[in-house]
Amino acid sequence: MSAAPQTIHVNLAERSYDIEIGGGILSRLGKFVAERGRTTHAVLITDENVQEPYAMRATESLVREGIDVDLIAVPPGETSKSIEAATDLWRGMLDLGTDRKSIVVAVGGGVVGDLAGFVAATFARGLRFFQAPTSLLAQVDSSVGGKVGINLPEAKNMVGAFHQPAGVLIDTSTLATLPANEYRSGLAEVVKYGVILDADFFAYLEAHAAEINARREDALTHVIARCCRLKAEVVRHDEREETGLRAVLNYGHTFGHAFESLSGYGKLLHGEGVAIGMCCAARLARRLGRVDDGFVESQNGLLESFGLPTAVPSLDREKILEAMRRDKKVQHGKLKFVLPNRLGHVESVGDIDEKEIEAALEVTGQTQPPLMLR
Amino acid sequence: MSAAPQTIHVNLAERSYDIEIGGGILSRLGKFVAERGRTTHAVLITDENVQEPYAMRATESLVREGIDVDLIAVPPGETSKSIEAATDLWRGMLDLGTDRKSIVVAVGGGVVGDLAGFVAATFARGLRFFQAPTSLLAQVDSSVGGKVGINLPEAKNMVGAFHQPAGVLIDTSTLATLPANEYRSGLAEVVKYGVILDADFFAYLEAHAAEINARREDALTHVIARCCRLKAEVVRHDEREETGLRAVLNYGHTFGHAFESLSGYGKLLHGEGVAIGMCCAARLARRLGRVDDGFVESQNGLLESFGLPTAVPSLDREKILEAMRRDKKVQHGKLKFVLPNRLGHVESVGDIDEKEIEAALEVTGQTQPPLMLR
Repeated sequence: MSAAPQTIHVNLAERSYDIEIGGGILSRLGKFVAERGRTTHAVLITDENVQEPYAMRATESLVREGIDVDLIAVPPGETSKSIEAATDLWRGMLDLGTDRKSIVVAVGGGVVGDLAGFVAATFARGLRFFQAPTSLLAQVDSSVGGKVGINLPEAKNMVGAFHQPAGVLIDTSTLATLPANEYRSGLAEVVKYGVILDADFFAYLEAHAAEINARREDALTHVIARCCRLKAEVVRHDEREETGLRAVLNYGHTFGHAFESLSGYGKLLHGEGVAIGMCCAARLARRLGRVDDGFVESQNGLLESFGLPTAVPSLDREKILEAMRRDKKVQHGKLKFVLPNRLGHVESVGDIDEKEIEAALEVTGQTQPPLMLR
Repeated sequence: MSAAPQTIHVNLAERSYDIEIGGGILSRLGKFVAERGRTTHAVLITDENVQEPYAMRATESLVREGIDVDLIAVPPGETSKSIEAATDLWRGMLDLGTDRKSIVVAVGGGVVGDLAGFVAATFARGLRFFQAPTSLLAQVDSSVGGKVGINLPEAKNMVGAFHQPAGVLIDTSTLATLPANEYRSGLAEVVKYGVILDADFFAYLEAHAAEINARREDALTHVIARCCRLKAEVVRHDEREETGLRAVLNYGHTFGHAFESLSGYGKLLHGEGVAIGMCCAARLARRLGRVDDGFVESQNGLLESFGLPTAVPSLDREKILEAMRRDKKVQHGKLKFVLPNRLGHVESVGDIDEKEIEAALEVTGQTQPPLMLR
């Protein structure tokens, strides 16, 4: 079942760009790039898992438009978001004669997009950058909004930039070959958009969970387009995370990053950490009297219908708190959380008693049903 | 002789900032920072040569305003503009609890400013950044305009960003202790501003060369303020080197960078390379009939009155051309030069016969006086 491609226009103060979404449109990448300014040289960055067939299809499409393509494949996985990988790309690109008229194209998941975007932001002080995300997480989240970066050994995404793409092309057919756990991981961010910004969308997800789990293309195009629209609207009003508005996108992420990093990166996928983090944030909001039990149950129910984990992994509680205090969203040591007050609406809340945060890590207490055991 | 401090306001599309210039004003840095937004933590980056007394004076001034200061000194010299140095700073800053409300303050010359600015641009996707340049080159050039970056082993300034400072404080008294060759090196950029943008300023420099060589504070404040004003005006109209206007600042630099890199970085100072590069560019313009012999002689005369070199170093001509072709200002292999057509006015000129460029490296031919022998 094929749906009509959709185009979303992202308006930013300085620059704006299009996101084009549809099934099988990767072979249109060359035209999409050529329509957005002349170039004769592209550095296409991908990973070894995605190289065949997607990066090759993208390459052929660029070559058809008369663009010379140098393809660089990095090893798959979070370890490629390193200073060493960025250094190899910088030096490799110099060696390939890359200059300010060259473009960088990322074909792959979040790791490839973040790494390629960071290298594009910093090589010769900035090259134009196109995203062709192939994972659900990258399609609904990381490819939109201009956040790019790499990890330090001690902290994720600690080095980076805001570097908006010149265009994003999302081929939903690439999701057909995505491993099940990565697909689920992306759905955690999809659920997040419903919870934080759009109760109608949340209801749509509840009603169409089966089609989404079956990766039906019409449902996917609808879901991805809605997420991109929601994210673009947030980014438009707070491109550089300055007003606090963009922070709503971090719902579940302060808890989630802690779970992710303490489990050892790669053990718990990003979306899996975020799903559990959203459960903790909802419980915290419940404890503070901001939402009722029904909210907590709906959110858990939807996450579980997508096969996402909701139980806090067995980790040292003190270490979890410590990891949250190190999070880069912390400002001068004060823990702040994005918490819901109803479906489709969240706020940033500071000055929370650490006892409450600790309690939100546990599923105990009289007022809450045993959510993890459903 | 002390002159009244001057303040220049740099207007940019997105953000603007002040440059304050005067003798002995470094002890005002704390107030200057505090006037521009609340912060309680500064990472002050300096080099081991400047640490005493300037970085210590800056630190005391910040502490007086209730700002915690972590001082990090890097080894002096171009080798600190490396990926390794940036990595050490990123990791060190994380370890010191640096977060998005922290600021970065650079106290030092161009190397410190470029490195600290790059780290500020990329740590946690960007921290506010203040410059207190202590070398003449940094005061008239690198501290203004937002270009920050590090070197790759194979190419200078190849990795970087445009990251405008939140403010620049220029204490002209710091020049009293600057080594003579570094002071001269800064004067090459000063002469450049006259040649490319301001014939009156060129005449001022000719008339006041003795006072400038004696580093008299009133002349220095005037000279530095004029250079900053000229640069700010160019940057305002082309912040990211997109329209070609900002390229005028690269006058002499394509030749100059080649001399610098082939001599081995540090052997020939940046300004020395630029001085010789300006002589080559003027000869090239003369060969193309754009300026007359008088222009070439005036420029050489002023450079020499500041003790700057004007003779091309004995390097392999083919290697010089090769290095220029690798320059990051080159676009898709086409050499372009910024060339004068009269004092105070330059243009970007492409499609120049390489024979002419080679000839401009030599002081021969019938139409030119033996400029190097004056």
